[in-house]
Amino acid sequence: MEWILSNGEIVKEQDLEISKEDRGYQFGDGIYEVIRVYEGDLFTATEHIDRFYASAEKIRITVPYTKDVFHKMLHDLVELNNIENGQVYVQITRGAAPRNHQFPENAEPVVVGYTKSVERPVEFLENGVKAVLIEDVRWLRCDIKSLNLLGNVLAKQQAYEEGYFEAILHRGDTVTEGSSSNMYGIKDGILYTHPATNLILNGITRRVIFELCDELGIDVVETAFTKQQALEMDEFFLSSTTSEVMPVIEISGHKIADGTPGEMTRKLQKAFEARIKMGVIS
Amino acid sequence: MEWILSNGEIVKEQDLEISKEDRGYQFGDGIYEVIRVYEGDLFTATEHIDRFYASAEKIRITVPYTKDVFHKMLHDLVELNNIENGQVYVQITRGAAPRNHQFPENAEPVVVGYTKSVERPVEFLENGVKAVLIEDVRWLRCDIKSLNLLGNVLAKQQAYEEGYFEAILHRGDTVTEGSSSNMYGIKDGILYTHPATNLILNGITRRVIFELCDELGIDVVETAFTKQQALEMDEFFLSSTTSEVMPVIEISGHKIADGTPGEMTRKLQKAFEARIKMGVIS
Repeated sequence: MEWILSNGEIVKEQDLEISKEDRGYQFGDGIYEVIRVYEGDLFTATEHIDRFYASAEKIRITVPYTKDVFHKMLHDLVELNNIENGQVYVQITRGAAPRNHQFPENAEPVVVGYTKSVERPVEFLENGVKAVLIEDVRWLRCDIKSLNLLGNVLAKQQAYEEGYFEAILHRGDTVTEGSSSNMYGIKDGILYTHPATNLILNGITRRVIFELCDELGIDVVETAFTKQQALEMDEFFLSSTTSEVMPVIEISGHKIADGTPGEMTRKLQKAFEARIKMGVIS
Repeated sequence: MEWILSNGEIVKEQDLEISKEDRGYQFGDGIYEVIRVYEGDLFTATEHIDRFYASAEKIRITVPYTKDVFHKMLHDLVELNNIENGQVYVQITRGAAPRNHQFPENAEPVVVGYTKSVERPVEFLENGVKAVLIEDVRWLRCDIKSLNLLGNVLAKQQAYEEGYFEAILHRGDTVTEGSSSNMYGIKDGILYTHPATNLILNGITRRVIFELCDELGIDVVETAFTKQQALEMDEFFLSSTTSEVMPVIEISGHKIADGTPGEMTRKLQKAFEARIKMGVIS
């Protein structure tokens, strides 16, 4: 049987009730996190929990527990469900109330969390993946990890149908990020990625990568690059909680360099694996 | 007891079950409509139902009934709940499936509909309302009546807290629409409103107003106007399914003309009321 987190308690799945008037269901009025579990441990849990609270605050939802209590709940959930390698998904919405756009006066936020087992995508990590350039039509608050994900969904689906692992989103000429990942190019030994503005989500894996670059002596330049510059990079990769450091070997049918994962990407992958084994971010 | 529409059947409210993995709940992956009920009749039902199917098609959800069957369901729901003056809310999501951004292979769309009693906002219609200019940060597919409404919610909340009835959204200098309404200015006898592009929702009330303008001999120019032009209009109003033709007498603290509802706005209100009494759009 699966246990789930429901409003501060760990309950049996069948006991969960979601209201038709939950603002998550009618407005996408909420935020979420996905946290990776390696060998039973929540990886970079503190950073994900901090971002969960930060996203909630940006849309003025108050998480009704301390971060420590919340952390313990997620930990207990993983343990009860015997998750060895997998993930925790957790979201909070503004709660259920008669439908009006403005915030309800008396709604209680609704938290739902659950786990699943997932193995690392070792084959993709080894061979790399293909991605495709797709116009970024999302809102201008992509820094919030919100439940308004239809733009991301439609981009991912288009990529998927065209045989690609991921969409590389661009606003006009400028590459922003993936539909559920951050994007990086390496040129002449320097790592380029979009700055953490309102146009992208500042990934936790992205922050780990910056630390690893620092350790490895790789210069990082947070600056937007164009679609054309993306194609001309020496190496390209994407990152996310579930994709880790994932080589991108082809963009929209155009091979990156010789079409195999690059050397610096490999170095970052190894350093990332070492981090997983350490189980800590810093 | 209240009856609700759940996947093609009218059931008791307590029998509705929504999955935590309903894509409406996790991605806002769905669309909706709100239809006004006057004297027990669904007003402009055909137009709302057509748009419901059109929005669903734009995000590639197939409504699993014919329009006629769907229409009858909504009608039966209104009748069973004895709604005299009120509204029907109905949404469809891509269904429940393990969480992945791309469309699930085998999910069944989930339809939920319900009614409530609401009176016409007669006092606001008589005296007019105040609105406030707020930056439009929404995505670039506002033509889809989707469940991704967080941008609308945050704008409405800001307006509400500042004492305004509605937000007038603008992208840069250009006025687009309200957070849940369309916006119109009248200058030298001509009605101006943003064209029905990807930046606004083409309101059903908006379309009725165009017909009324035609009947009344009022010229309509579908062209974007600026914030400054908005302030300098002779008359200003907004429209929506629940707000009908609503005079806007003040924008961001600046009175429109003498700060009372304008003459042409009054004419349109009267013509709109006559339409309600006719119960038909054309």
